[in-house]
Amino acid sequence: MTSDHQAGSIARARREPEGRLEPARLSIDGQLVRVLLKSLDEPPVRVSLWNGESIAPANAEEVAHLRIASRASLLKLVVDPEYQFCEGYSDGTIAVDGDLVALLEVLHRALSDRGSTFRQLIDWSRRRQTNTLEGSRENIHSHYDLGNAFYSLWLDSQMVYTCAYFQTPETTLEEAQIAKMDHVCRKLRLRAGETVVEAGCGWGSLALHMATRYGVQVKAYNISREQMAYARARARALGVENRVEFVEDDYRNVSGLFDAFVSVGMLEHVGPENYAELGKLIDRVLAPNGRGLIHSIGLVRPAPLNPWIEKRIFPGAYPPSLREMLGILEPPGFAVLDVENLRLHYALTLKHWLARFEAARNEVGAMYDERFVRAWRLYLSGSQAAFSTGQMQLFQVLFGRRRCNELPWTRAGLYRQ
Amino acid sequence: MTSDHQAGSIARARREPEGRLEPARLSIDGQLVRVLLKSLDEPPVRVSLWNGESIAPANAEEVAHLRIASRASLLKLVVDPEYQFCEGYSDGTIAVDGDLVALLEVLHRALSDRGSTFRQLIDWSRRRQTNTLEGSRENIHSHYDLGNAFYSLWLDSQMVYTCAYFQTPETTLEEAQIAKMDHVCRKLRLRAGETVVEAGCGWGSLALHMATRYGVQVKAYNISREQMAYARARARALGVENRVEFVEDDYRNVSGLFDAFVSVGMLEHVGPENYAELGKLIDRVLAPNGRGLIHSIGLVRPAPLNPWIEKRIFPGAYPPSLREMLGILEPPGFAVLDVENLRLHYALTLKHWLARFEAARNEVGAMYDERFVRAWRLYLSGSQAAFSTGQMQLFQVLFGRRRCNELPWTRAGLYRQ
Repeated sequence: MTSDHQAGSIARARREPEGRLEPARLSIDGQLVRVLLKSLDEPPVRVSLWNGESIAPANAEEVAHLRIASRASLLKLVVDPEYQFCEGYSDGTIAVDGDLVALLEVLHRALSDRGSTFRQLIDWSRRRQTNTLEGSRENIHSHYDLGNAFYSLWLDSQMVYTCAYFQTPETTLEEAQIAKMDHVCRKLRLRAGETVVEAGCGWGSLALHMATRYGVQVKAYNISREQMAYARARARALGVENRVEFVEDDYRNVSGLFDAFVSVGMLEHVGPENYAELGKLIDRVLAPNGRGLIHSIGLVRPAPLNPWIEKRIFPGAYPPSLREMLGILEPPGFAVLDVENLRLHYALTLKHWLARFEAARNEVGAMYDERFVRAWRLYLSGSQAAFSTGQMQLFQVLFGRRRCNELPWTRAGLYRQ
Repeated sequence: MTSDHQAGSIARARREPEGRLEPARLSIDGQLVRVLLKSLDEPPVRVSLWNGESIAPANAEEVAHLRIASRASLLKLVVDPEYQFCEGYSDGTIAVDGDLVALLEVLHRALSDRGSTFRQLIDWSRRRQTNTLEGSRENIHSHYDLGNAFYSLWLDSQMVYTCAYFQTPETTLEEAQIAKMDHVCRKLRLRAGETVVEAGCGWGSLALHMATRYGVQVKAYNISREQMAYARARARALGVENRVEFVEDDYRNVSGLFDAFVSVGMLEHVGPENYAELGKLIDRVLAPNGRGLIHSIGLVRPAPLNPWIEKRIFPGAYPPSLREMLGILEPPGFAVLDVENLRLHYALTLKHWLARFEAARNEVGAMYDERFVRAWRLYLSGSQAAFSTGQMQLFQVLFGRRRCNELPWTRAGLYRQ
């Protein structure tokens, strides 16, 4: 390796007048970068190497500048660009100057339609943590129990960690999270006195919103201990402990009979192997005139989650396609009433979170370390890019019993103030 | 058979004081009726037989009175109630006094969840006419070429033969068909100067509406000769022959590149075996920022069409589940943007059609014969009952290219006047 490295340094390329490099003069490392960029459809990025070489974009203005610190880092990137870019960015062996979100948007577009056998082999070797009752508890703990203090640094004041609903792009994040909760409640047509079960309730904001604003009785499930402690304290502070029951248990253990079933941002953690069982559960707990709403990240067609996100951020996660989601609702014969795709709302939600995260990065660094800061910056930026480029979608699916005729005549009521 | 018949007559049951019959006194025919009613969960109907027996509902007020004219008719009904009721009603060997729609709603509820092996065998023996290019032409001809004069007796003035969109239940049918066309155009966000391809255009009303009201250039396909002659004449009368091209050809032969793809009420005639091909076709003809809308009758889960409707009214038809519909859109990677279920709107549309059909029944009888009148009354009544009981659903599915960000921020614009 040492002699190659020296050879690369000696063969350092000189700049052409227009800033392009003469490929023939590039070191073997620089030539590898060229091959890599070509395989990614020539993204508008400059790549600089430890040896001083700098390879400019072939055809376009650069949106970002990648600095690769070592040959080891470069070789890993060539073998598995999607995963190793994330690893390298997190550990600091790959640095990015410029607009990280714009860079990730470019890479999403380039990578999204590729599915080589090689990539599939790599994915296979990093198979999802399965969501058994025990597996789910570990998977959820590793993300949601990072500490309420951490999340409160960059989420809205109500700690809503799912896609918001912006009535206009200028709406604030706090307003948009309230609007999202109202949008869900209005779709479900909640009436005072009704009962609602929530599967996966986060820090309890929706459960508390439903109880306080819509007068319903809520039973809300979650297996994250930190989140449940926070939710119960809020219920006490609001004086609604008798109207919202927070149950620290798996959604599979839901019991009772309810007028509405709601799940916002939990399906991503269920796994398609459990969809049929989830459908049976909803069928069992929903009253004859019951309604349900599932809000989930989704894909246009089945694909594994980005392997780095799956390994480092969300073990066990799987965003389904809409067709896969219907595997929950079709066997029990539920009628799908309304599907809304809120992808661009999630891109904007993430933009807000990222800005707040950056503003709090010193505090995050003090809580954890710089590697953690970089990994979470990458996760938030990559997620924003995934939604803005359509790599990911956000589906709100409203459903009901097939024969229930207690339906609003049109959806116009959702849009009246 | 004769001795049985006589035995039945001799054993004619006498009425009990409360109008119920003493089962032990029923003839073998009457006992068969009891068994049949029991297998249908005791629907609230009275059944009278050729032998004078009359079997009242066990537990409820009767909604209708069935008169069965012969033992042959009864035996067929016992073997295959769903199909033979329709055959018997059409040929007059089964008559119905009272509310036919209410009776069919009761039967839909009783029959909908039953799927015996026996029933499946019968369905198998009446397999769908396949929708090859030639098969489709025959299938479509048999329904849509019954004559424009016939359809004009009971459709709205623009001859729209698909589910209308009633802004309120009091909206007239004419207004609701126009509102439906506007709802579709607004979902597609049609802009003047854009190009639209329509697969299955009926009598041309939507194509002409899009061209005259939204200023788009339309290419509209249909294989029904009668409908196309009518549509072309209307285009000439409106002076828009240069803006709407009516092509008498199969949707599979669509060519060109378009800003929007629309298909209202054709998917029912495509057949699930052709969905993947339809998806490829849409992918091929849709521009990079293109949008599409498919409006179709659907089911909550896959099931064969009512075999009588399939045989006598709509050969080759197959209403898909929503999940099956996504088999069109998922492989090419389209993003589903909006799904709306308009089931109750179709029940109301059919109620309007049925009322107009009844008002014109003498003219229909003079055009065809009484058997035709009864068969079509049954088809329209049964369809209304199927939508009002949730046996059938109506899905409008809006989709676009995964990465296209030219999307309305919310759906509120659809509900502004």
